[in-house]
Amino acid sequence: MKKIVLLASVILLMTHLGFAQENASGIKEDFQPSTLNQPGKEYPMVNSQGYARFRVEAPDAKAVSVSLGLGGRGGTVLEKAEDGFWMGTTAGPLDEGFHYYHLTIDGGVFNDPGTQNFYGSTRWESGIEIPAHDQDFYALKNVPHGKVQQVLFYSESTQSVRRAFVYTPPCYGKDQNKKYPVLYLQHGWGEDETAWSVQGHANLIMDNLIADGKIEPFLIVMTYGMTNEIKFGSGLGNFDIKQFQTVLVDELIPYIDKHFSTLANKDNRAMAGLSMGGMETKMITLNRPEVFSHYALLSGGVYAPSDIKDKSQVKLIFLSCGSRENPDGIKKATEELKNAGFNAVGYISENTAHEFLSWRRSLYQVAPLLFK
Amino acid sequence: MKKIVLLASVILLMTHLGFAQENASGIKEDFQPSTLNQPGKEYPMVNSQGYARFRVEAPDAKAVSVSLGLGGRGGTVLEKAEDGFWMGTTAGPLDEGFHYYHLTIDGGVFNDPGTQNFYGSTRWESGIEIPAHDQDFYALKNVPHGKVQQVLFYSESTQSVRRAFVYTPPCYGKDQNKKYPVLYLQHGWGEDETAWSVQGHANLIMDNLIADGKIEPFLIVMTYGMTNEIKFGSGLGNFDIKQFQTVLVDELIPYIDKHFSTLANKDNRAMAGLSMGGMETKMITLNRPEVFSHYALLSGGVYAPSDIKDKSQVKLIFLSCGSRENPDGIKKATEELKNAGFNAVGYISENTAHEFLSWRRSLYQVAPLLFK
Repeated sequence: MKKIVLLASVILLMTHLGFAQENASGIKEDFQPSTLNQPGKEYPMVNSQGYARFRVEAPDAKAVSVSLGLGGRGGTVLEKAEDGFWMGTTAGPLDEGFHYYHLTIDGGVFNDPGTQNFYGSTRWESGIEIPAHDQDFYALKNVPHGKVQQVLFYSESTQSVRRAFVYTPPCYGKDQNKKYPVLYLQHGWGEDETAWSVQGHANLIMDNLIADGKIEPFLIVMTYGMTNEIKFGSGLGNFDIKQFQTVLVDELIPYIDKHFSTLANKDNRAMAGLSMGGMETKMITLNRPEVFSHYALLSGGVYAPSDIKDKSQVKLIFLSCGSRENPDGIKKATEELKNAGFNAVGYISENTAHEFLSWRRSLYQVAPLLFK
Repeated sequence: MKKIVLLASVILLMTHLGFAQENASGIKEDFQPSTLNQPGKEYPMVNSQGYARFRVEAPDAKAVSVSLGLGGRGGTVLEKAEDGFWMGTTAGPLDEGFHYYHLTIDGGVFNDPGTQNFYGSTRWESGIEIPAHDQDFYALKNVPHGKVQQVLFYSESTQSVRRAFVYTPPCYGKDQNKKYPVLYLQHGWGEDETAWSVQGHANLIMDNLIADGKIEPFLIVMTYGMTNEIKFGSGLGNFDIKQFQTVLVDELIPYIDKHFSTLANKDNRAMAGLSMGGMETKMITLNRPEVFSHYALLSGGVYAPSDIKDKSQVKLIFLSCGSRENPDGIKKATEELKNAGFNAVGYISENTAHEFLSWRRSLYQVAPLLFK
């Protein structure tokens, strides 16, 4: 008995020291609950290599799979264990950062009861977080924290009360006379106004940048870009930006400038968006060049020099994407803009795809460049 | 063909006029999507009588049921239709207001992909809303709206960054010198700091009361009451309130008084809680009589006159519950408090149980009584 306890202690110690056991497939058995799990839930788990492991209770089900991982056709098929739980591990490591996923159980799509839900793909999806080597920049730390304020504003054009979230920095309100620049920051297709502060940690990225003295504080405004109304892949050229443009430019901006201490002018107003929010950013900044001075497209296309009639109207163009997307396209567009005399900055997020770690990093990169 | 179109039009018209068809069970066929459904989702639906109807895709499942309704053993068993969708209607009408629920699919517990998730029972649950005849008081209207502000505060005692939500009224910040009273408002067991503004619509209740001139504006602070750590029904007498009491009274209150324009004194500080949050309210108000002057327990027990050492320390005791809970207990306790010379008010929410409509109504009732 003593020997067994000793052996167990040695294994435990080795695990703690990083000598995790590897199984036959080379998968380290150092799995930990994902940081996004519901309180008290052990699964889904992730290991230090980025593998994800799932465990789902559905003892009478015929088939359970996970829409994530490198197993056949883009998913991970779970196997029923003796205890009636369905288990499985991704065939390979996942990219660092946040991933949406769901379960397919007997032909129906459901969420994993182990983890929290995040609005993406026009539905509340399960989410899992693979710890990134550079996660410190969006970590929740004991630094002064700003607020994320939910505002409800009336939109005359849509005859509806609409929601936005406003990040205000820690110092906001302390000096009543101080006014701040504003970044209008859009989510992607199938997401909503919750995405940037929840999946994106925009508030924590700002808190940390401010605590480190790397940026001058500004506000971030996030609202719903009406992207759910767009059928994905159905030809975005036909998308009519006018309705959202009216809500954003003619209704929300005046509301924000009235209710917050803002520098209410073009020089102190930026617009950025990820994916389809980038497309919206491009359309709106070009349609209304008098409103924004700083533009950023995160995995959301590029500007050509010919898109912009008056070069002097634009102070910054920031273009980014993950290295697994179209980095050459971003680099080429950035060079062309620079050659045409624009202040253009390109950024490639290493080893990430069309996912939130690319966009967290992009926000971290672009924030220090704004309002200079 | 013409006749069929005409007939269909007449039926449609009758439905619109309220002449909904009744089926053999007396169920009116005027079902509409629940207001809490995910964008674009038709099911779950509710009808004008309060019946709920569910439709779930899981073509290869053996059994699907819903933890809601009056069918055998407290749930509704769904039947598989020809199209592979599982459907079912509650055996009777549900009470008005908000209900948590989940699906059981082949022995596992999952959420309904048709509706949004709400944190209750220590997990993110599905939710459905049965329109209440008095829903106007918490409706989203075109009135001035306050904000719900997410704050992150450092707690020395738990060595953690913790979250709270602060409702600030529409006028907050306009007059920089104006200071406001504060209500500390706690959720129930298995819920968290999101419950009161999401399920409870506390912000909309306040916005509407203020727009109607029925109350003087005050702030509401909502934080996590650590109730998940308590095993439900395992003897609450052993519950140690000290950890949460320290976070609330010694850490959060000073943070709020530092970062918001508050009247930082006992006369302008109230505490209320629903269910287990009521138990916490009772314990903390009695342990720390120097902190709060107004107490409210919503489906959360009662005070006996002997609980309170110094009557002059308490300005108001509000006790409430749903009529399907223990209304006689509330009435009796209120009478005893009144007879002992306390300013006590009892309120019974008609035709509701231990659910959020009881608590929305209770907040609506107690708000005008605070800080007089």
